Formats: sequence, structure tokens, C-alpha cells
Amino acid sequence: MKHFKRVLITGAAGALGKVLRAGLADIAETLRLTDRMELGSAAANEELQVCDLADLESVLAATKDVEAIVHLGGVARENTFNNILNSNIVGSYNVYEAARKNGVKRIIFASSNHAIGFYDRTETIDSNVMHRPDSLYGLSKAFGEDLARYYFDKFGIESVCIRIGSCFPEPMDRRMLATWQSYDDFVQMVSKSLIAARVGFTVIYGMSDNCESFWDNTKASVIGYRPKDTADVFREKMFAATPTPDPFAPAIVYHGGGFAADGHFEDQ
Amino acid sequence: MKHFKRVLITGAAGALGKVLRAGLADIAETLRLTDRMELGSAAANEELQVCDLADLESVLAATKDVEAIVHLGGVARENTFNNILNSNIVGSYNVYEAARKNGVKRIIFASSNHAIGFYDRTETIDSNVMHRPDSLYGLSKAFGEDLARYYFDKFGIESVCIRIGSCFPEPMDRRMLATWQSYDDFVQMVSKSLIAARVGFTVIYGMSDNCESFWDNTKASVIGYRPKDTADVFREKMFAATPTPDPFAPAIVYHGGGFAADGHFEDQ
Amino acid sequence: MKHFKRVLITGAAGALGKVLRAGLADIAETLRLTDRMELGSAAANEELQVCDLADLESVLAATKDVEAIVHLGGVARENTFNNILNSNIVGSYNVYEAARKNGVKRIIFASSNHAIGFYDRTETIDSNVMHRPDSLYGLSKAFGEDLARYYFDKFGIESVCIRIGSCFPEPMDRRMLATWQSYDDFVQMVSKSLIAARVGFTVIYGMSDNCESFWDNTKASVIGYRPKDTADVFREKMFAATPTPDPFAPAIVYHGGGFAADGHFEDQ
Amino acid sequence: MKHFKRVLITGAAGALGKVLRAGLADIAETLRLTDRMELGSAAANEELQVCDLADLESVLAATKDVEAIVHLGGVARENTFNNILNSNIVGSYNVYEAARKNGVKRIIFASSNHAIGFYDRTETIDSNVMHRPDSLYGLSKAFGEDLARYYFDKFGIESVCIRIGSCFPEPMDRRMLATWQSYDDFVQMVSKSLIAARVGFTVIYGMSDNCESFWDNTKASVIGYRPKDTADVFREKMFAATPTPDPFAPAIVYHGGGFAADGHFEDQ
Amino acid sequence: MKHFKRVLITGAAGALGKVLRAGLADIAETLRLTDRMELGSAAANEELQVCDLADLESVLAATKDVEAIVHLGGVARENTFNNILNSNIVGSYNVYEAARKNGVKRIIFASSNHAIGFYDRTETIDSNVMHRPDSLYGLSKAFGEDLARYYFDKFGIESVCIRIGSCFPEPMDRRMLATWQSYDDFVQMVSKSLIAARVGFTVIYGMSDNCESFWDNTKASVIGYRPKDTADVFREKMFAATPTPDPFAPAIVYHGGGFAADGHFEDQ
Amino acid sequence: MKHFKRVLITGAAGALGKVLRAGLADIAETLRLTDRMELGSAAANEELQVCDLADLESVLAATKDVEAIVHLGGVARENTFNNILNSNIVGSYNVYEAARKNGVKRIIFASSNHAIGFYDRTETIDSNVMHRPDSLYGLSKAFGEDLARYYFDKFGIESVCIRIGSCFPEPMDRRMLATWQSYDDFVQMVSKSLIAARVGFTVIYGMSDNCESFWDNTKASVIGYRPKDTADVFREKMFAATPTPDPFAPAIVYHGGGFAADGHFEDQ
Repeated sequence: MKHFKRVLITGAAGALGKVLRAGLADIAETLRLTDRMELGSAAANEELQVCDLADLESVLAATKDVEAIVHLGGVARENTFNNILNSNIVGSYNVYEAARKNGVKRIIFASSNHAIGFYDRTETIDSNVMHRPDSLYGLSKAFGEDLARYYFDKFGIESVCIRIGSCFPEPMDRRMLATWQSYDDFVQMVSKSLIAARVGFTVIYGMSDNCESFWDNTKASVIGYRPKDTADVFREKMFAATPTPDPFAPAIVYHGGGFAADGHFEDQ
Repeated sequence: MKHFKRVLITGAAGALGKVLRAGLADIAETLRLTDRMELGSAAANEELQVCDLADLESVLAATKDVEAIVHLGGVARENTFNNILNSNIVGSYNVYEAARKNGVKRIIFASSNHAIGFYDRTETIDSNVMHRPDSLYGLSKAFGEDLARYYFDKFGIESVCIRIGSCFPEPMDRRMLATWQSYDDFVQMVSKSLIAARVGFTVIYGMSDNCESFWDNTKASVIGYRPKDTADVFREKMFAATPTPDPFAPAIVYHGGGFAADGHFEDQ
Repeated sequence: MKHFKRVLITGAAGALGKVLRAGLADIAETLRLTDRMELGSAAANEELQVCDLADLESVLAATKDVEAIVHLGGVARENTFNNILNSNIVGSYNVYEAARKNGVKRIIFASSNHAIGFYDRTETIDSNVMHRPDSLYGLSKAFGEDLARYYFDKFGIESVCIRIGSCFPEPMDRRMLATWQSYDDFVQMVSKSLIAARVGFTVIYGMSDNCESFWDNTKASVIGYRPKDTADVFREKMFAATPTPDPFAPAIVYHGGGFAADGHFEDQ
Repeated sequence: MKHFKRVLITGAAGALGKVLRAGLADIAETLRLTDRMELGSAAANEELQVCDLADLESVLAATKDVEAIVHLGGVARENTFNNILNSNIVGSYNVYEAARKNGVKRIIFASSNHAIGFYDRTETIDSNVMHRPDSLYGLSKAFGEDLARYYFDKFGIESVCIRIGSCFPEPMDRRMLATWQSYDDFVQMVSKSLIAARVGFTVIYGMSDNCESFWDNTKASVIGYRPKDTADVFREKMFAATPTPDPFAPAIVYHGGGFAADGHFEDQ
Repeated sequence: MKHFKRVLITGAAGALGKVLRAGLADIAETLRLTDRMELGSAAANEELQVCDLADLESVLAATKDVEAIVHLGGVARENTFNNILNSNIVGSYNVYEAARKNGVKRIIFASSNHAIGFYDRTETIDSNVMHRPDSLYGLSKAFGEDLARYYFDKFGIESVCIRIGSCFPEPMDRRMLATWQSYDDFVQMVSKSLIAARVGFTVIYGMSDNCESFWDNTKASVIGYRPKDTADVFREKMFAATPTPDPFAPAIVYHGGGFAADGHFEDQ
Repeated sequence: MKHFKRVLITGAAGALGKVLRAGLADIAETLRLTDRMELGSAAANEELQVCDLADLESVLAATKDVEAIVHLGGVARENTFNNILNSNIVGSYNVYEAARKNGVKRIIFASSNHAIGFYDRTETIDSNVMHRPDSLYGLSKAFGEDLARYYFDKFGIESVCIRIGSCFPEPMDRRMLATWQSYDDFVQMVSKSLIAARVGFTVIYGMSDNCESFWDNTKASVIGYRPKDTADVFREKMFAATPTPDPFAPAIVYHGGGFAADGHFEDQ
């Protein structure tokens, strides 16, 4: 069933972009895919555009005639402030501002658990807590969420901010037993965020049905998310593969794991 | 297993009344069924009485020698204030007052999501929030809940107030993907409310196990409710059958759906 | 300074009605005063009308051409359900419905602490808690608050619901050391509720600056209330005049005092 | 997979001690088992020690060279204050103090629902509420939890406090339909508490996946608990076996059941 | 005005005992004063008894024929576990148990901020938070509060637990600018706790009206506390007398100050 | 009393900069004042520097050898995104990053009520709520607060974020009756934020003791703020000077006033 005429995915050349390119193929008549990087050749239902998120004109072109945006683009891990600033802060502003100018009604924003990465793992949090970014990257995601809130409160552009945990083919360390989201569950979450009747400004956690968790994802019922996968089947493998952690090491204490433990990225 | 000698169901001729007439057949030695309308012929375990809820004498007769009451009676959707007043406000008062005079110990009150229908769909609420009625009907249900609280606090009459979502054979629009409760799940909920060891004053939501929801029904564990059905199997059908909604239309914004959007019912 | 052309006070012949008749004399060019009882002779700025709150036509006449209403009318203490029903439930509905038809924008509703009278005195509550009426009277006030919420949510009519504690010339028993509000403070509270820029739907407690209290009145800052009086100066007198209470007597346990302890008022 | 070199179980001769002796056999190279009572003969992976918890020297010996402790020891139901004092208060202090002196890093403390047994069954509580002990026994468990908090805050010794509901082969009365935890689920809970990356100071409820419950066990996701059993399969049997309870009997009103209803144990 | 026939003060030879001996002289016809230490000679309204709190018989004698108890007795700062155990844990148990046997109705318990001393100074807490004792002393006060709760829930003995901050003639360091309570304010607080109509189980903070604070003392309105003194007048003196503190030193980070920073008191 | 060797004030040429230049003259041996604008001639205790906040080198020079920073610099009202980006987002980053490199321990950050300007005036909020910026300006202040949190959580640099309401010689419209902070109170707030023993990451509201308010400033007790002024003395004047507002106009509905009502500032 086609729910939209045209949906835009930014950052479509990245790992999650590729997942959604396949996973959302049927949601719209046309998927517009943008990235700074090479996007390969277009399928029948696809439009490909090179887009530099730091350039408003480029983003205005990308968002023209689209009904909804899945905004994955930008730097996807810690980096220097200048890179974060251009790709994530200016980039996200350009996406929302272009959406406003082009009349786009809804944006699914790829936020991150690193926006709240400095909570202690023994604190189970929902999505109404204050930000505690664990990195410049996380800070830019916190900014993106506040930006989304502003554009909803002032201009009525709806957003679902997905605080992605660890979206990979399978968990790669013990922490991901809690934070992992399968590709299928991620596709489901984005898809349902796009088609839900009303999302207003909603923050949810990108995670599968893991027995271990430090996030209370009750709010995900707003879009009707029901995860089908679980990290639990990888527990034995991960325990065997990883030495017993020190419970007081910063990478273990905090939600954000290694991001919370790392030092500052110096600008060159 | 017969848990009671006699249980009364008011409004037994209505749609949900019929569901419970069948579903609760085994819970008591005798089911007393009352309504203003025709109730057909009595089965072996049944007693039928015509009862006008607006008339205290009539309600006193109906509640005599019963151990528990399932109070479904009254107007079941928006109406003029006069009708709401007589059927729901006076009617519910009469039921509680008659229960007090006749020594009835527990009442299951068919409240409604319309008692809280003006919350925004992006707000997930539990059953400790303030009322926000979306209609005169919803206002009468809010009154009924406060009445139940009063009779518990002052006279020790226990109540479970079930805020029924949408109890139909199957969901009939997109909103009901969130609010639907199957007949079987409704029967389970009422049945367990009747036999739970202690319910005090408890408010719960009448809903099945739907992936989409704006109600946190944690409190339903007080009676041991475990829904067996889900609206999820109707999702594709409902999406195909309904045009994409406007997320800012009042019928979409609020928990109460169309009730929140509708205007005032004028008295003639 | 005259803030309004015409303000209506219902129940103007009652004790608090008289207090406001004097206290609000300067707030509007014309004060319209209504009651079932005799209102004496009209001052230059006054209009007097006999009004039966249970009669919508009468209330429509009373609310015509007024900008705001202070709704004090109705039964002011416990009574039979029939009296409560007509004076308070139907009466308040008529006031709100007439306000809607006549385009009145704001209502100050004389609610009561008896809408939450079954909380324990050792529980300090704010104005976001669920109702716990201690009487049929309190139940009608809970209804009035929900009615006010409905008319704000659906029709944009603003309300301040003042949960009046004990508004008398001075405290008359130990409980009033906590619940007392002086006449001057009551006039201030009503006056500021009328002229505040925006009140939406706001619930506050009618109390002076008493050292003893079980209500957290933080919300009263929405209208800018700053009490000038205190029950503290009557403490010694009240302690001397009253025997040591039994901390487990219902009249002592609950916020509502004697109302919570009293039995049911039988209809004749 | 062996996660530890040596784990100590105190109270290993008791009912739950035996369950863990079998259930945790594979978690460490050596299980050290202590009790005042006879422990039978040691299996290949076991070390047996007689230990009087009231004697610090004895506890120092028991905790030497262990990496983690499962502290079950002490009086397991209501008793005189002197017995509670020696076995549970002094005993638990000795365990924590010995852990500190011997460098043990983590303790799984068998707390009890009786530490919060005076909450009303209609109040669903999580694990952040204040204590409300229902007995001297429950008071000693509340003390044990505060002791655990102190040793974490000051010395960094981690604890999981498991508020055990009713851990038996199967439920034995209606209340246990809510509070029951199967032996397998208890073993899972203790095992995961031992091997979780970080537990800090965490309080969870020892219960299976029961449809009826008055505890919100969200916090158990910190250790990754996923119950596999449910009391639900015993519902019919229990209802048949037990007379309809009085909802105002203290044993029914409160979480703690009979413990809340019982009187004081007099010292001889 | 004499509110009582006889009130007992335990620990009456201590610093605060002396303050109350003078301050409460008028509250009862007879003040019974007990301590292990010398109490001087009895005034006309006084009865002096030597009392060892660790000895139940001694406490039974002390509590005979009293209407209310102010329980100050026990060790007043960090000490070895054995001393804390006997004086504070056994001692407080004996006071409550003797009160139960002798029919005493209300106890004012001198608790301490050290029962919650491990909260961070930047966290403003009220009196509904979980305990976080900062010392064995604080742990014994947490125990005392839970004991008080138990005796209220089970036996109806009312308690006000006063978490005393720093009660001295004047503040002696910077931290006391926040935690200080003047002797007069302490006397007022105890006095009002004794005579309030109903206190149930109430926890409040013993502090004056200090501009700096990390405690939200809203709950103190239950007894009608209105502090008359403030540490603010000592601010300049304290700042001049104390070097600028390190905000990360444990004695500065935590509510409990030096108690949180200190190590363990070893038993001899 | 001089509490510091050297304190830096950024944006010292602005209106509030001038207020602090005078008001903090005695807090340190040397006040370093920076701005892009002319700062006049230096007093004996002053050092003046031209500083472009968007230039990290310039900020590194400004923050060298200072113990604490009062960061007022940047754009002080709504502007184009580019200007906000450079002055406020990059500017604040540079201040925190320079503080880290230069070992500065504490920053007082001039945040704004516009970081939470989209809350409804009838919602009283404290400082633990999520951001709801009402403008790009407010968004940059939300960013600044998250930045401050990050630098505290990761590097231990303390911050007090003051959400300034309306800091002017006197209120200039009705809204400022709620949001006004006098210059003296602002100086007190900044001064106490600088000298408090520990502030960690603390958010407070910059407001005087106004009877009308929508902010719960309890948290300001962490630094010991006690306002001496009040907007109340300007109430009559403001009411006389301003027409009755429309309670549904965005500038009236929201905390942020006109900022919430204004449209978007287009980049040229």
C-alpha cells in the first residue's frame, strides 16, 4: 500500500539509509534519496540527488514536492565540533527550514541515545527527561530534538525523534544486548512513524524487545511500534566474547557507553 | 465456578449488555438483568426486570438481594443534557444509593474514555490523571467515577470503573486500532473485576492488547487483566479503508476522537 | 480602575455574595447581582435580578451582556441529592451553557475543598490530583470543575475554580487554622482571577497565608494571588476554645473535616 | 559458562538456598555454601562452611576470597525482635562489613515484599517508593536495603535487593496469584543479578509473569530479567480452594497479606 | 496553656535535651526527663529518671503514664556499629515497643539529615524520597523512621520524624548556612508536632528559614511550622571564616557534609 | 570581600553587562570585561578586552587566568539563524571549550525563558522540564544549557544556567509583572551563583519576588537566592497602561510572550 506520493530519505548512502531504501520501498510512489556520497543507480521508484545538508539551497531542492522526510543525514558518530556543527546543527536546521518553506508536514528525525547518554545505567528513563548529551555528537542530536520541538510548536511540522540505540545486523558487545535494534524493527519503527495518524512532537527509543534495557519505551505506543526481534538470542555469544566489565568504568556506568567514556575530539 | 449468588447487570438489553449476559452466565447462580427495553425471555439462570434508572424505587427493587452490580445502563453516546442528566447522572446516583441501602458490596461501572477524551493522542496517560471530558456524555462518566469514589471513601462500596475504549466485534476506523477492545477481552475484564479479592476504587482502560495506544493500563494488573485479542490484525484493512487523516483535525488530535470534535447537542 | 463593563455575580444574597458585592464594586461599570433571595436595593453601579439557576431561561437572561461571571450560586453545604442536583448540577450547567450562548468569556467558579475532602490531612496536595469528594455537595463541586474543563477545552470559555476552604470573618475551630481565608483575601483572589491575562482552566485553593495547611497553592501564582491575612493570629484562641481532638476521628483525619465524617442526607 | 571463581551463598540450607545451590551450580568454579544448619555433603564444585551470621569473625571467614555473595541467611518470617535483631540486622551488617574488609564487589540481597507490605493492594508501586514494613521481619529487610545503599554510596559495593514475593513450587493461596515467583524464575533473577555489567544499587521485585500484580517491575530490566513462568495457570485451582475473601480484612487490603494482619511477636 | 498531663523527653541531658527542657516547660503539667547522664535537680514541673534505652524494662518505666514522647536519646553522631546498634537501633525499638505497651499515642522522633545524607547538594529533595544514609548513624535514623512507620501503620501510634539539620546556637561553617535550625525554631517545631491535631506518620526537616537550602520542607505545613530565624544573618561571617571549598570534595558534594566524607568507624 | 582573583564577564558592553560590571565590582580582585563593542575606560580593578566569541583564539585569550566566567555575550533577542549560529551556538561552544583548555572551573550562563517559551502560562513549571524553545534565540539558549550539562558531566566544569525573565529597570508590560527581575536581584543571583559552594549543573529562573509567576523557582535555593524586589508595585501602572489582552493570542498564551508569537526571521 502506497501511503505517500513522495518521501525523502537524507543520508541514504549510509548504513541505515540503505536499510530504509529497501525497507521503505513500498511506502511511497517515489522515494527520493539524497546523500553527499554515491547512491548507485536508481530503481524504478527512486529519485537520487546529491545533497549537501550544510547548503540550504541544496536542501530546498531535495525537499521540494515531498510529503515527509526521514532525516538520517549528517555525521553519525563523534567528530570535531566544526564537522558536527556543519553536518548536524546547520544540516538539521536546513532540513527543518526547507521543510517549512516547501510545506512538508512530517519529519522522522534520527536522533540518538547519545542525547541522553550521561544517565546511569541503573536509571531507567522514559522520553520526558532532560537531555544529558555524552558527546558533541549527542549534543547535536539534543539540538535536533529541540529544533523539532520548535518547528512543531511554532509551525505545526510534526516530528518523531527516534533515539536510536545500536542498529546493526546483530549486537556486537554486551551493552548492545540492551540497546540493540534489528534492521527490521527499525524499518517498522520508521514506517509506522510515517503513517501514524498524529505524532505531534514525539520522542521514542530505537530498540528491539530486549530483556535488558534502561529505557522505558511506553511512548512508542503512540505510533504502534511492536518489536519483533530481541537481542536476547545473542546473550550467550556476547557474554562468551566479552570479558567481565568493570561496573565503574565510564563506558559501563552510562547509557552512552564508549561515547560517555571518550575524551574530547580536538579540532585540527 | 459460581462466584456469586446473584449479580445484577443494568442496561442488559444494550449491545454490551448482551455480550455480558452471555459472557457472565456462569459467574453467578442467578443473573438479574434489567433495562428499560425488552429483554426477551429469561434463561434458567436469569431474572428479568424492567427498570428505569431515573426512578430510585425501581432501582431499589433491581438491586435487592444482589451481591454485585455491573452498571452498563444509561445513554451510551452524546445526547442532550436533559437526557444525560436523567439517564446517566441521576441514574448512576440511584444505582449507588440503592446499592448502599441494599448492602451491595461492589459495582463495576461502565465508564468511558470520553471522561478523559480531551487529552492529546501524543500524551500517554495512566488512570491517575484529572478528568478532561469531551462531551456531556463524557462529563456524566466523569461524574460517575467521582460518585464511585465517594461511595467507596464514605461507605466502603468498591468500584472498578472501566473506561471503555471501543468495544465492538472489530475496529471500524483507524482510531479504533488504538482503542478497540474485543468482546472476549471485555468479558474477561468485567469478570475479573467482579471476582478480584480487593478492588477498592480502581480505574482501568477497556482495551485489548493493541500495539497502538495512548493509555498506560498498568493499573489493570490489580484485577489480573491479560488481554487475549489485539486490533493489530485489522491494521491493514483499516488503513486501506480510511483516507489519510489530518493530524490537526480535532477528531484526530484528541483521545476522544469524534466526540471531541463534535459540537454541542442542543436541548429541544 | 474599571476592568469590565458588566460582571455577573450569582448567589449574590449569600454570605460570600455580600462580600463580593462590596469587594468587587469597583471592578466593573456595572455589577449584575442575581439570587433566588432578596437582594435589597440596588446601588448606582448595580443591577439586581431574581434568578433561579435551575431554569435555563432565567440564567440566559442573567448572563446576557456580561463579560465575566462569578458563580457563587447554589446550595452551599450538604443537602439531599435532589436539592444538590437542581441547584448545583443543573444550576452550574445552566450557567456554563448560558455563558456559551451569550458569549461570556470567563467564569470564576466557587468550587470547594469538599471536592477533594477525602484526602488525609497528612497528605499535602496540589491542584492536579484526582477528585475525592466527601459529600454530595463536594461531588457537585467536582462535577462543576469537570464542567468548567469541558467548556474550556471545547468552547474556549476560561475558568478559575476556587476550592474555597473556610471563608468567614475569622476561624471558628482548629481545622480552620489551616483552611481559613479572610474576606479580603477572598476578594483579592476573585478579583485577580477576573483580571488575569490568561487563566485557561485553573484550579486554586481559597486560603489565606496560614502556617498550617494541607494544600500546596503554588498554582495560585497564575493569577498573582498574594494573601495578606493569616489564621495564625487566631491559633491560641482556637486551641484554648477546642478540646484536644482525636487524630483518628474522621472529622480530623480528612481534609473535608465534618463533611467527611457526616453520614448521608436522605431525600425526604 | 563460569562467570566467577567463587560465589558465596549464605543461608544455603534453607528452602531457597537449596534452590540456588542447584540453580547456580554452573555460575562459578566454586560455590561456597554457608548456614547454621547442616548442609549435607559437598559436591565437587562446592565448599561448605558453618557460619553464624551474628558473629563477624565467622562471616569474615565465609566471605574470604569470594567475588560475589548471595545473601539469603537469617530469619525468614516474623519472629521476636531479639531474633530478628541478631539474625537479620546484625547478620546483614556483618555480611556487608565483611564484604568491605574482604574486597567483595557485589551482593545479591534477599529482601522481601514485607519491606513495603503496608501499601494497599490497589496501589501499584515501583521500587522507588518509601518503605512501609508490615512486620519486624519486614523492618529488618528495609534496614538491609538501606544498609546496601550505604555500602554502595560510600564504598562502591554493588547490590541488587530482590523483594521476594512468594517463592514456592506453586502458589498456595489467592494472594500468591499476584506475588508468586517460580523457582526457575528466581534462579534466573539471581543469576542475571550476579552477571549484569553494572547494578549499582538496584531494588527489584521477585515475581513471575503474573497477570495479577501490585508491583511495577520495570526496573528489573536493568538486569535483563524475563520471567518464563506465571501463576496464571493456578488461578482456577486457587479460586476453587479458597473462600471469597473480605476485601477489608487487613490480610487482603495490604501487599504483605497475613504479615500485615498479624499482631506483635512478644519477646519471651 | 498546658496541652498534656505528662510528656517524656529522652536524652534530656544532651544539648538539644536541655533546649527542650526549657522550651517545652509549659506544654505539660509534668515533663519527665530521662537520660543515662546526670540531669541535675528537678524543677517543680519535672520528673527525672535515669534510663538506659537499651534496656526495655527501664524504658517501660520511663514511658509509663505519659501521653507523648520526644525521643532524642541515643548516640548523636557517627560511632561504632555496636554502639549505634545498642543506643539507636535497640534503643528506638524499646521506645516504640514501650509506647505500645503503655498506650502512648504520639512520638516525636529526632531523626537526622544523615538518613538522606548521600543526595547531591544540587538535588532539592522533599520528604518522600528513599533513604540514602551517609553513615552508620544515619542508617540508624533511617531505621528509626521505618520503625515509626511500622508502629503507625500497624498500631496507630503517630510520629513526626524531624530530620534535624544543624541545631546549634549559630551556624559554624558554610554548610550550616543551609542546614541550620535555631534553638527557638527547633522548640517551635517540636512543640507544634506535639499539639497538631493529626500527624499520622510525617517526616519533616529541622531547618530555619535559610535562603540556601537543599530541602523542600512543604510538608512542615502539616504541623504549622513557621520558622522565625534564618542563617542568612551569618552568611558574611561564615564566608569570611571559611576557605573557598572544593565543589567535588565529598563533604561538599553531599547533603550530609562531613558525615558523607568520613570513613568507617571500626569496632574495637 | 574578594572571593576570586579574576572573573570574566562576556558581553560586558550590553545592558546586563553594565549592570554586572558595577554590581560585581567587589567580588574579585580583577574583573575582566570583554565585548565586541566599546567598553569605555577601565577602572582600577578592571581589564578590558575586545573579544569575538565566534573566534576560539579570541575566547582562549579572554578566558586565560580566570577562575570563573559570567557568560552574557551573544545575540540577546531573535535574529537570523546565521547570526544566532555564530554568536550564540559557536560563541557558547567557544566559551566552554576555552574554559576547559584554560582550567576555568565555573560558568554562569545567561540562558533565557525563551528556552522554555512554548509552555502555556497556566502551566507552572520548575527547572526539570524539557525544553520548548519559542524562537531561534530560545533554541540557542536550549543548546547552551545542554552544552553546559555536557561540560559538567564530562569535564566537571560547573554551571548555573539562569533563565532570565525580563531584566529591566522596571516592568514594561503586563507580562513582565510575572517575569520581571530587578537589576539588584539579578546581581544577587549572579553573585551567589559564583560563590556557592557547589552548583554542579543547575538551572534557575531569573525573576524577582513577583506574586504572579509561571515558574516554580524552588531550585534557586541551591545558591541561596532571596529576591528583595517585586514587580507587584508596578501592577496598577501596568494595568492602566495596557489594554485588556486576548487570552488566546499567542503572545499571551505562552511563557515566551511576543517571542512565541513572532514569525520566522528570514536570512537575507
